[in-house]
This record gives sequence, structure tokens and C-alpha cells, in this order.
Amino acid sequence: MLSEELVKDITVKNDKKIVLLVMDGVGGLPGKKGLTELETARTPNMDKLASSSALGLNHPISPGITPGSGPAHLSLFGYDPIKHQIGRGILEALGIGLELTPDDLPARANFATKDKNNVITDRRAGRIPTEKNIELCKKLSEKIKTLDGIEVIIRSGKEHRFVVVFRGKGLYGPLHDADPQKEGLKIKYAQAFNPDGEKSARVVNTFIDQVNEVLKNDHPANTCLMRGIDKVPPVPSMNELFKITPAAIATYPMYKGLSRLVGMKVLDAGDTIQTEINALKKNWSKFDFFYFHIKKTDSYGEDGNFENKVKIIEETDKIIPDILGLKPDVLVITGDHSTPSVLASHSWHPNPFLLKSKYVRIGESKRFTEKECLKGSLGHFYSIDAMSLMLSNALKMTKFGA
Amino acid sequence: MLSEELVKDITVKNDKKIVLLVMDGVGGLPGKKGLTELETARTPNMDKLASSSALGLNHPISPGITPGSGPAHLSLFGYDPIKHQIGRGILEALGIGLELTPDDLPARANFATKDKNNVITDRRAGRIPTEKNIELCKKLSEKIKTLDGIEVIIRSGKEHRFVVVFRGKGLYGPLHDADPQKEGLKIKYAQAFNPDGEKSARVVNTFIDQVNEVLKNDHPANTCLMRGIDKVPPVPSMNELFKITPAAIATYPMYKGLSRLVGMKVLDAGDTIQTEINALKKNWSKFDFFYFHIKKTDSYGEDGNFENKVKIIEETDKIIPDILGLKPDVLVITGDHSTPSVLASHSWHPNPFLLKSKYVRIGESKRFTEKECLKGSLGHFYSIDAMSLMLSNALKMTKFGA
Repeated sequence: MLSEELVKDITVKNDKKIVLLVMDGVGGLPGKKGLTELETARTPNMDKLASSSALGLNHPISPGITPGSGPAHLSLFGYDPIKHQIGRGILEALGIGLELTPDDLPARANFATKDKNNVITDRRAGRIPTEKNIELCKKLSEKIKTLDGIEVIIRSGKEHRFVVVFRGKGLYGPLHDADPQKEGLKIKYAQAFNPDGEKSARVVNTFIDQVNEVLKNDHPANTCLMRGIDKVPPVPSMNELFKITPAAIATYPMYKGLSRLVGMKVLDAGDTIQTEINALKKNWSKFDFFYFHIKKTDSYGEDGNFENKVKIIEETDKIIPDILGLKPDVLVITGDHSTPSVLASHSWHPNPFLLKSKYVRIGESKRFTEKECLKGSLGHFYSIDAMSLMLSNALKMTKFGA
Repeated sequence: MLSEELVKDITVKNDKKIVLLVMDGVGGLPGKKGLTELETARTPNMDKLASSSALGLNHPISPGITPGSGPAHLSLFGYDPIKHQIGRGILEALGIGLELTPDDLPARANFATKDKNNVITDRRAGRIPTEKNIELCKKLSEKIKTLDGIEVIIRSGKEHRFVVVFRGKGLYGPLHDADPQKEGLKIKYAQAFNPDGEKSARVVNTFIDQVNEVLKNDHPANTCLMRGIDKVPPVPSMNELFKITPAAIATYPMYKGLSRLVGMKVLDAGDTIQTEINALKKNWSKFDFFYFHIKKTDSYGEDGNFENKVKIIEETDKIIPDILGLKPDVLVITGDHSTPSVLASHSWHPNPFLLKSKYVRIGESKRFTEKECLKGSLGHFYSIDAMSLMLSNALKMTKFGA
């Protein structure tokens, strides 16, 4: 991939349309019967595409590195995931549906338990129920609205987890975590990395003091830990870099949030694959790049639920004719990272990748599976190059150099 | 590829000989009959080589990026094409056969039309005939010989295009273009990026003023625009980096010029494939690295002329026995970039690559085609690594590290 500055110089606007269909975590490993999830699934539509497309395998970061969803998606979107690292606090905030602005300093927080000597005795406050979490966040929101002119936004997550966004001018990140990391140690305040962050550390630490005061009678949730405290990084928009008008079709908040971060318009897409495909059809004329996200391949992979991951792949296969019916100039089908059911977690294995366009070389792949992608014309490559491949196949890139 | 500094440390001189045969733009896409140009051509000699050589596919820059001829060749020659970016003016000057020195600041220029308010009304002066261009360049050359102690060299190109080389001490580049980019805007002068370039900008702008004066009665060609104004970059020679004595066999000025830029001796090679092979034979004993360039595969590709591109591939195949008869230690056959006839332009697809030497692993390729290269032992790689592969196969590289 060329640097953002060089890419910007060679992208051109035209009216050709690209669909990037991401089946989250789709790549797998052989299950009990020796076949992967993709090999097990009946996918006649993708298989048909395979024999007339360019196939290959892409590494989100580099071989052997397991990515989180943030870097895995950023690289598919054409951004260097090392250069653009996104704090956990930001991802958590995006994940619960908060819209972030450049003035925001988000943090992920835990309700925790401290004793009377300010020693942390439980970093998760006994995993209090989500209902209790909601009640406590409501109480905190009523008592703590601004600190030193900075607006404080508090949102519940699940069990002991919540998110705090500090919003206002003059905030800097990242800060060192306000978390002793281990139980049996004293509470720890946030610390600035350099003088620019001192005001932010002061605000965060005043917040912690006030939480301790407001919750003093709420044992076991009588304090909080704060981590991943960082500003939203200034990411150039996809429109600026690639001269496309991108839209995101996703059902989960974090993916919508990530899409917004790179300047996509997030469409109202409901919460099923069927409502997503309806959103694609309805908005087809208005955009020239569609990121279409299927979440549940990953969710079932994370659960170790091989059979249900297979079912979601089969369900996704059924919408391929609908997508092709819209006549996209470029269609890519891939994952952001692999989530093999046998590992029940993200993994380091590269993503199966299929690119359909008028201008591809065709290899010898007969299906859309990990093994058949090895026979494709694209070989192994890095996810960050996927965007150049999509843009070039849509004739949206000119020559580098004369 | 290691950095130039590290490569220099591990290259060694010996008397083994390398031939790098570049069929410009040879990689293609399927035509009407579903086969690429290479798949269509009868190439018994290359096919025979394929089953005893290492094959693969190389990316000039990175997957999805279409290169110009400059960066595509530089990377094959072992130079980082991002680090060594070559201005348009330089390539145009090389392209019309000018030999450039480190003191030169070349620019590509257009004859253009301005009205009496100095507004550009036609950026190409109605595409004046080349004969008129020659006449105007002669007139300018007679009137403008030096400016502020700087020699001015003016050479005609085709239609409205010409080249100006400013030659003398103290010139810096690049400069911002002296071109409003759009018609309907006032003439624009060149601008320095920083104080180092101010003298150069002054010289270029004085030149423009004098052109306006000399051509004031030559409507429509009554002014000029100047672009790609940059110095020849200081490129270390191939001899310095790789300890080889390289020669270039090429028929087109730009490729000769690029070869000269990296320190090759440009041989008198006539203008046909036959005169080129004669030059190779005649000079065989004097050099240990031969860059052998076939231009017309690219020219016909650019014209969208599938059949003639096939013919040039077949013609090239016929000289393979002549090359092998000289017993090179390493023979590489590849392209600089792909130029599929169906696109009628350079493209982003990787180059088919074949390396014959005593020390290769052999894959399962049976022919020299895009698809068969996928089955080769080299896989996908970056063009910049081709030079290390050639040098190592000629035992011209020692170990990196102990």
C-alpha cells in the first residue's frame, strides 16, 4: 500500500460501484469432520462466483498476528492499522452506540470494589448484574454532569462495564490507565504521558473522586477503574483519500461507529441480514461504495458454535443473487479476521477473499473456501491492499509515476 | 529488499552473467476467446524453459497499484520506487533522448493559448501540428540561450508538447507547476516549495516571460505551461550497489535514459528485436548484466491490439535460443508492469516472471503464462526483490548477518 498522501494523489472519482461484503470472522479451521465452516456450508452462489473471480487470502496485520475488530476493519478500509491505533475506550464507546466528536476523550470503565484503605479487592465488583449497572450509571449521571467545564457522559455496558466520555476543549490522550491492574493494590489515578495531558488527567481523577463519594454506600460497586483513555484519532475520510461516497450497512454499534470514524454514512439497516439487504437496495443509487457487514459468523465462532456459524454462511450465500442483481462493478467477499469455531476466538489465519470484476485474472478456485482460495490468482496479500484492488478494479485509481 | 546500504555490503563481484529480458507490459487479461495474450501466443522456447525454471508473479509497487514505466523499471532494477521518484520533466527529457546531468532541472512544457488579459484559453494551443512545434522551439532556442547564467535547452515533442532543461549550478527542485490546471484561469508562475528553490523559480518564470514576449504574435501558441519541474535525483549506480557492470539494450529513448540514470552503459542496439539480439551477442564479453528491453508488447497493449501483442510475444520467443546459446548464468523473463489489451493501458496486475539458473527450485508450471506462473516456486513477490533473486542465483550476494 502506498502512503495515504500518495494514494490520495492517484484516486479518481467515477460512478462505478463497489460492494465490500464482510462476513465477520468467516475464516475457520477444520472441525470434527475435518472440514472448515466454509467447506461444510452449502454455498452454491459463492461457489459459482469463485470460478469467475480473483481469489486469495489476506492477512489483517501480518502472518501470525491475531487482530481485534478495530485494526482488522481499518486495514480492509485501506488504513494502516499500526499508524491508526484506536483506543479501547473509543471502541467501547462506539460499541454502545455513542457518536464521538473530535473533542471527546472516551474511557472504558469498570465498577470495582475497594476497602476502607482504598485497596482494590475486586476489579469487577462481583460482576454486578446489568440492571444494577444501569441504576448506578443513572445515579452517577445525575450527580456528575460537568467537571472543570468538561461535559461528562456516562453509559452502561454489560455487568460491571461502563463507558465515560469527557467532552470539551483542551483534552488530550492517551493517559496511563487509572487501574492498579491487580487486586490487593491501592486505587490508582490516571496519569498524563506528558504536560499536554495534565488537564485531562485532572478531570479524569476528579471524576474518580466524585464516583467514590457518590457510591460510598453502594458496596460492592463503590469505586471505578478507567482504562484505554484516549482521544478519537484524526483519521482522513475515505472520501478524501479514495474519492468515494461510502455507506455502511451493519447491525452492531461498534461497526457502525468504526464506519462513521472513517467518514462513511451509516445507513438504517435494521438487525437482520434481510433488513440489511433491503437497505442496500433502497440506497443503491446514492453511494458508490457499500460496506456490508455480517456479524453473526463471528459471534457463533466466538461461541465455538460450528453449526450455527455454518448456518449464517448459508444464509449469507442466499443474498448473493440480490447483490449481483444490482450489478456492482466490483464485489468483494471476505472476512475482517478469522474466528475458527474450534478456537472460539479471533485467530491469526488469513481471510478468504473473492473479488469479482470485469478485469480479473482467474485462477483455479472452484469454491469459496480457505483451501480453494489458495488456488486463486491473488495469492497471499495484506488486507490493507484490498482497498487498492477494489479501487483499481473499479477504475478509480490512475498510475503511480510516469 | 534490504536497504541500499545493506545490499551494498553483501554484493560481490564475479564473472557470472545475468540477462534480464523485459517484455514491456507483457502481462495481460483474457481477451475475446477467454485467453490472455501470453496464453494465446505460441511460445515453445519459453514454455520449455518454464518446466525447468522458477516462476512467479511480481508486483511493481504493491497489489492493486498501477505503475508508470519509471517506477516499474526502477523496482526491477532493485531501487525503491517510492524513495526514488522521478519527475515527469525528467522522464519526458529522457524520452526525447536528452542526456541529463546532475546540474539539470528539466520540465515538461505545453504550448498554450492566452488572451490579452493573460487568461489561459487553451492549455494545448489547439494541439498545433508537430511541424509548427519544431518551428517554434527553433525560434525560442535562438532567442533564449541563457538566463541568469543558466543554460536553457529547448527540445520539441509531439503536437503541443516540448521539453525545457535548465542547466547550471544552484538549481533545486521540485517546484510547483507553472500551470493553472484549468482553462479560464490566469497564467500561473512556478513556485518554490522552500527558499532553496527560489532561484530556480525565478529562472523558470523569467523563461515564461520571455516565451510570452517571443511568441506574442504566434497565436494560438502564444504562451507555455510548465510542469513536473524537478532535478535528476541522485541515484546510486548499479555498479556501486550490486558490483555489476551493466549494459542496456533498448530501442526507445526513455528506457535508454532510465538505464543511464542508474549507471548502465547504453549499447547501440538499433530499432528491432533482431538488431537488439545482435547487440547482445556483440557485447557479450564486455558486461555481466544485460537489461534487454522489448517495447512493442506494451505499445500494442496500449493500442488495445491483442493480435499484434501476441505476435511480438511470439517474435520474442524466437530469440530465446540465441540468448541461451550465450550460456547466461541467470536468465529472467518478465514485464515491468502489465498492459492488458482489453484495458488498453497499464494495469495493476502482477508480472509473470521466470528465472532460469542452476540453483532454482522448480514448481509445476508448464508454460510461461499468468496462470502457470501461479504454480511456480516463487509465488507472489515484489519487483524490487527481483534484483536480489538474480544476483543470488548468479552467486553475486553473500550472507546478511553472521
